[in-house]
Amino acid sequence: MVDGQNGRLVFRGYVIADLAETMSFEEVAYLLWHGELPNSAQLQELDDALTSHRGLNKSAVAALRGLEADSLPMDVLRTVVSAQGVDSHLRKPDLEQAIAYSAVFPTILAAFHRQRQGKEWIEPREDLGHAANYLYMLTGEVPDDDKVQALNSYLVLLADHGMNASTFTARVIASTESDLASCLVGAIGALKGPAHGGAPSLVMDQLEKIGSPDNAERWGREALERKERFMGFGHRVYRTYDPRARILKAMCERLNPTFYALASKWEEVALQLLQERHPERPQATNVEFYSAGVLQSVGLPKDLFPPTFGASRSAGWTAHVLEQVADNRLIRPQSEYVGPEPKKPVPLSER
Amino acid sequence: MVDGQNGRLVFRGYVIADLAETMSFEEVAYLLWHGELPNSAQLQELDDALTSHRGLNKSAVAALRGLEADSLPMDVLRTVVSAQGVDSHLRKPDLEQAIAYSAVFPTILAAFHRQRQGKEWIEPREDLGHAANYLYMLTGEVPDDDKVQALNSYLVLLADHGMNASTFTARVIASTESDLASCLVGAIGALKGPAHGGAPSLVMDQLEKIGSPDNAERWGREALERKERFMGFGHRVYRTYDPRARILKAMCERLNPTFYALASKWEEVALQLLQERHPERPQATNVEFYSAGVLQSVGLPKDLFPPTFGASRSAGWTAHVLEQVADNRLIRPQSEYVGPEPKKPVPLSER
Repeated sequence: MVDGQNGRLVFRGYVIADLAETMSFEEVAYLLWHGELPNSAQLQELDDALTSHRGLNKSAVAALRGLEADSLPMDVLRTVVSAQGVDSHLRKPDLEQAIAYSAVFPTILAAFHRQRQGKEWIEPREDLGHAANYLYMLTGEVPDDDKVQALNSYLVLLADHGMNASTFTARVIASTESDLASCLVGAIGALKGPAHGGAPSLVMDQLEKIGSPDNAERWGREALERKERFMGFGHRVYRTYDPRARILKAMCERLNPTFYALASKWEEVALQLLQERHPERPQATNVEFYSAGVLQSVGLPKDLFPPTFGASRSAGWTAHVLEQVADNRLIRPQSEYVGPEPKKPVPLSER
Repeated sequence: MVDGQNGRLVFRGYVIADLAETMSFEEVAYLLWHGELPNSAQLQELDDALTSHRGLNKSAVAALRGLEADSLPMDVLRTVVSAQGVDSHLRKPDLEQAIAYSAVFPTILAAFHRQRQGKEWIEPREDLGHAANYLYMLTGEVPDDDKVQALNSYLVLLADHGMNASTFTARVIASTESDLASCLVGAIGALKGPAHGGAPSLVMDQLEKIGSPDNAERWGREALERKERFMGFGHRVYRTYDPRARILKAMCERLNPTFYALASKWEEVALQLLQERHPERPQATNVEFYSAGVLQSVGLPKDLFPPTFGASRSAGWTAHVLEQVADNRLIRPQSEYVGPEPKKPVPLSER
């Protein structure tokens, strides 16, 4: 439930603030897939299943090895998930596959990040949870608890969000009775857009241009003159502060004080300028804005922000697809033709 | 305009029957992209552009080489188009890319079909049009005119069809400001579903099971008892004979008499049985049914039917994406939460 009026986000009976700081990503994925939180045995079973599905198949390895170092990580994720999915043919989406694809997203991203730096891929470690293992595969070092906690909270916060554009894409694809990889590949493509999941790295680009808190107001006024869009503000649904942004902001203050000093000043200025310029529009900081600071604090380069959003949202995408196929109907809207009335074609020689 | 009541399909001011037998795929793609038929110079320019974009880039070659021989051609197309698209990063969809992706679909399919038979890929030939070159790359032989004509008519007939599920998928992805490859990869995933483009090869499977016209009624009655769906019948929009099916049926009668004898008998029986069983439902033969016979007559194996549908629809998909981005608004439906009221989570140790 995305309750835009009251700034409330609920995952199957739990408000996001109660999940973000106490639950593991694995517990929340279980909740999204099953409708209830797991007990210890159920959680152990899920951990084992996720751990056992972290590897890439032969097609995915070949596709990943063939990608150039300057590829966008979102395109890498789209391509390698597609290649990994070739083994499933037209299998009906099921829970085992939901787990398997969610397990493999971090493997793809970490391996590509290593590869583009000329480094060897790092094998996953079975004794590490989902968030910790992702950071481990990126660096080869077991991350400290602060970073694991921060990344885990991020993964929980972004794991689902109603009928957003990428989730809707996945459901439309599922509605044709296609397979889960097809749904996910479409969803990744939709998430890539700057109007959806592509924003966090653009927030970072803007903060780099602003440079220091003192420069925020001057830069903001000049940017408005240039008609440059402020990244990380506004949302189609929320009419008040995004509850995820609130949590991420508090995390930034604790974990990434340099980012926080600049970002919180820029947030204040930007909201003020947007209010002056467009008093009729509700303006609020969205989830992308402080996501950038949290992901930076755990050591991710900014071009891994959007696909890490995808690694989180894989839980929600797959849960939605399972719901769609459980009681399916083809999603195929009508459209209105506004073109000319039919006429006879003129032969090519007379055109 | 998909005029379901009157069984009429119009592409930007021309009814499909006026296009299918006299226009080249290239002319119709031009019409879909530009809104008018090309003159000779414009058509020549398009031919040149298509010809120059038939090659695969390094990432696409690596991805294609890495795919196993038993992969579904739809999965191959999805994966290799994704890899080909990595070069475009976040480029806004434009006409040049629409042409480039449409040009490359047949290359991918032909190369994979050669590769899985242990044969070398065949380079495209600049002196051959879109349909002829596709057949040439599959076999290494310049095809005779009958086959080129038949494949060309098929490619024209399937090139667009209002807001079908794959086209809608492409538009949702475009609406997030993503790139054209992302839109196409999602559309391919949607087309793969048997409720959308996956049906023609399933029609062929059913006809193979029926075996002979004499066996049609017995097989049909038994299949109904088993609750087996008849493939190639029914459509969400048409309430009368699909105008494309009518043209394809006439082509089958001329080009593929063996198929036609069985298929036309089975069509008669199937419509009769469906009418008896579900008198309340409008039942009609859809485009997939006679597509199978036409594609078989030009020498395509049945698992290339769905991605060849994709090669045709690439024109419509890209035209829709160009329309979407010209006046864009994020497509993001609302959904209604029907889960439980929020409650406090119980700690793991107490679950």
